[in-house]
Amino acid sequence: MKEFNAKETSERIIAFIREYYKKNNLKGAVIGISGGKDSSVVAALFTKALGSENVQGIWMPCHSKDIDKKDAYTLANHFGFEISEFDLTNLYDNYVNQIKGLYSVDDDTLIDANINIKPRLRMLTLYYHAAMLSKVKGGTYIVPGTSNKCELYVGYFTKGGDSVSDIQVLADLTVDEVIKVGEVVGVPSSIVHKTPDDGLSGKTDEDKLGVKYHDIEEVINNPESPNINEDTLKRIRTLHLNNEHKFNIPTYRKWKK
Amino acid sequence: MKEFNAKETSERIIAFIREYYKKNNLKGAVIGISGGKDSSVVAALFTKALGSENVQGIWMPCHSKDIDKKDAYTLANHFGFEISEFDLTNLYDNYVNQIKGLYSVDDDTLIDANINIKPRLRMLTLYYHAAMLSKVKGGTYIVPGTSNKCELYVGYFTKGGDSVSDIQVLADLTVDEVIKVGEVVGVPSSIVHKTPDDGLSGKTDEDKLGVKYHDIEEVINNPESPNINEDTLKRIRTLHLNNEHKFNIPTYRKWKK
Repeated sequence: MKEFNAKETSERIIAFIREYYKKNNLKGAVIGISGGKDSSVVAALFTKALGSENVQGIWMPCHSKDIDKKDAYTLANHFGFEISEFDLTNLYDNYVNQIKGLYSVDDDTLIDANINIKPRLRMLTLYYHAAMLSKVKGGTYIVPGTSNKCELYVGYFTKGGDSVSDIQVLADLTVDEVIKVGEVVGVPSSIVHKTPDDGLSGKTDEDKLGVKYHDIEEVINNPESPNINEDTLKRIRTLHLNNEHKFNIPTYRKWKK
Repeated sequence: MKEFNAKETSERIIAFIREYYKKNNLKGAVIGISGGKDSSVVAALFTKALGSENVQGIWMPCHSKDIDKKDAYTLANHFGFEISEFDLTNLYDNYVNQIKGLYSVDDDTLIDANINIKPRLRMLTLYYHAAMLSKVKGGTYIVPGTSNKCELYVGYFTKGGDSVSDIQVLADLTVDEVIKVGEVVGVPSSIVHKTPDDGLSGKTDEDKLGVKYHDIEEVINNPESPNINEDTLKRIRTLHLNNEHKFNIPTYRKWKK
């Protein structure tokens, strides 16, 4: 396996962004800033590629923790891009209340369904701002994705939510590589090393997944003979397999190939 | 070119659905019923494949026309599946009002941004119901897509909206072929031959696209030498090209292949 060079990678990603924007005559980026590592590294890379005046951060709380807001605004100040707040709490509550008014269902029954409202409202909001800014400022704004390779491998994302994007710069980087790139581009250490969680349940991402990102990396890097225990490997492979349907939508074809 | 056989195609699609459901141990389908041709044909095919008791239609008005509601309920009665109403009007209005409360923008500036709220709220709502029904009824409900080949060819769909689905059965059929399948499976003639529109602007889909579905079909069927005028061909090819980015998200890769 080739060695990962964080500095070179960051430079290549910045060049990749610039090239794509130039080729397609694009102007800016609208990025959901969660206060976590991935969106912070993406915002840093786009700020360096396009200039801070062409990056618009959106902080989208929805029954969220104050600490995350502080980190989101710290990041925006650090890199000098504008950030605005769009609170999803009322929209979320109204949605759930409308459901409860129509069907006789209790809160427990709705837990699973409720989870995905937030990433989908966030997607809607990012694309809304991209369309609005394109009109107001002139020139086209697009929405970069923030998923990393480990999350994509085990399907830790929401279809129709955070998986919807116009350009991906971290999708081929493992969590460890994202952290290294984050350090190189100057994301504040407290943010780049913060334990990833959803800002709500009190559980970390790794708690919810039931596996460590480090172990997912091992499976990605050494698919033939990963150096992890059998149960963990089985769990990661199951997550990966169950994730397949999010990428390949079964489609009826008239003529079999 | 092989000849299109509507009866055989409908049977093959029904078999395709049954096979996929069996293989993945799925139970039901949640389908947004718009009162138009495509969602009606999809609902007919899934009702025949799974039984009407496993199909849940959702009528999701948002400042919508009454005639479309009538057609949606006529269809559900005709095929015997349950349909429920989830009105998006308040959610839509609240969203736009929240935007207007935050930014000094007038209605004209927001026209483009507003267009895509509806398909994205519909996507969110279909997946919400699929998750809720899976919990309430036991067994997994999924969300079939309703796009046809002509719409997909020219990009007449919303990223993160109606393009998000779990299984596609019309994606390889042109508009003409969808109509023929609709006739064969018994979709009421007034619905299957209704002129497609968005139920809001008073404009038909073809008005908005600036081209006829018949001409798109000609380009799909005879890509080398389509028998249509030069301007129309140019417009269709431009739409198709501009649509590319919705399918292939540019992604930075560590090692060039």
